[in-house]
Amino acid sequence: MKGLFITAEGPEGAGKTTIIHMLVKHLEKEGQKVIYTREPGGIKIAEQIRSVILNPDHTEMDGRTEALLYAAARRQHLVEKVLPAINEGYIVLCDRFLDSSLAYQGYARGLGIEEVLSVNQFAIENLMPTKTIYFDLEPEIGFNRIKKNLDREINRLDLEELDFHHKVREGYQLVIDREPERFVTINADQTIEQVYSETLHALESIISTHVTSTSL
Amino acid sequence: MKGLFITAEGPEGAGKTTIIHMLVKHLEKEGQKVIYTREPGGIKIAEQIRSVILNPDHTEMDGRTEALLYAAARRQHLVEKVLPAINEGYIVLCDRFLDSSLAYQGYARGLGIEEVLSVNQFAIENLMPTKTIYFDLEPEIGFNRIKKNLDREINRLDLEELDFHHKVREGYQLVIDREPERFVTINADQTIEQVYSETLHALESIISTHVTSTSL
Repeated sequence: MKGLFITAEGPEGAGKTTIIHMLVKHLEKEGQKVIYTREPGGIKIAEQIRSVILNPDHTEMDGRTEALLYAAARRQHLVEKVLPAINEGYIVLCDRFLDSSLAYQGYARGLGIEEVLSVNQFAIENLMPTKTIYFDLEPEIGFNRIKKNLDREINRLDLEELDFHHKVREGYQLVIDREPERFVTINADQTIEQVYSETLHALESIISTHVTSTSL
Repeated sequence: MKGLFITAEGPEGAGKTTIIHMLVKHLEKEGQKVIYTREPGGIKIAEQIRSVILNPDHTEMDGRTEALLYAAARRQHLVEKVLPAINEGYIVLCDRFLDSSLAYQGYARGLGIEEVLSVNQFAIENLMPTKTIYFDLEPEIGFNRIKKNLDREINRLDLEELDFHHKVREGYQLVIDREPERFVTINADQTIEQVYSETLHALESIISTHVTSTSL
């Protein structure tokens, strides 16, 4: 049986990385074949591309250059890590994917959702996520959480204005409206236990639906 | 008056870089505002992207990753170097541009000319070269010239088989057939003096046509 490809999306500070790690532990205990990954995912070429993108000195980076670099890192990570795992029957939980580029570069930076989608379709060919879990949060709340978290390294994107984070949220909503059946939206303005519980419920539903549908 | 954007294309070993440098010196002596450039062109971000592409250790690099990285470096070089020079009235002679990606990645690596063009249109928006000088050469001749030139650093692309270079030539021909009015083809299987003389003649014709047409 082929595996599942599930992506997690949302703003910085929504807690999605913490939640996914909790989910992976839970599923592993249940004996499921599951892996967590995020771009660049330890893929040498993708790591190098990412270091070019996130270097705080690169203030001259054009928005289109950035979008192309994200698509390049995405491609390599997909080919080297995600696809082999899916083909071996794993549930792949990927922290950010295509939709981040559509919301951040396509909408918030104003490059156009359609144009960034076209570049990403070249990168991913037909491999869209089976389902995408979207952690929705008021930008003010996410931003305050980031600032309070002193352990977290501040990168170039975090330095953008709060206004940008509002645009990101609008962008995500436009992306979801295009393809609502792919998304499950989780309210991330709750305790971590509540968010975890809701996400686990959603994920178990996705897994059981997939298992049922493939065994028909 | 806005400047001109002229690109040079062709296989390795066709002598195009040597010829372009000779042309730049000639035009400078005539008092023309002219610059030579090639991607990454000293642009910090583009240099870093190129070092990822050309690293001989990156044998696992996927063809689509490579095409996206070339498009990213192209974008940054265009925005930081080519566009400002054109806007200041310079004749910009660019050693390889869009068509290299179409011939090498689009055709020779089999990604599809249309698909690679679509990614590059995202990168360059509407800035197509005014004219493109194509240095045509039998792949065997170019390959032998490369091997004899011990001063030249051998990069990953050079290590591809001769068969690949045949495909590159076919790819260039397909690209030219799509847009013949943009191209001037020079037979590069001549002495350097002959190739220079023909190219200079072609370039002077391009410049005078442009000056005439913009002064009407």
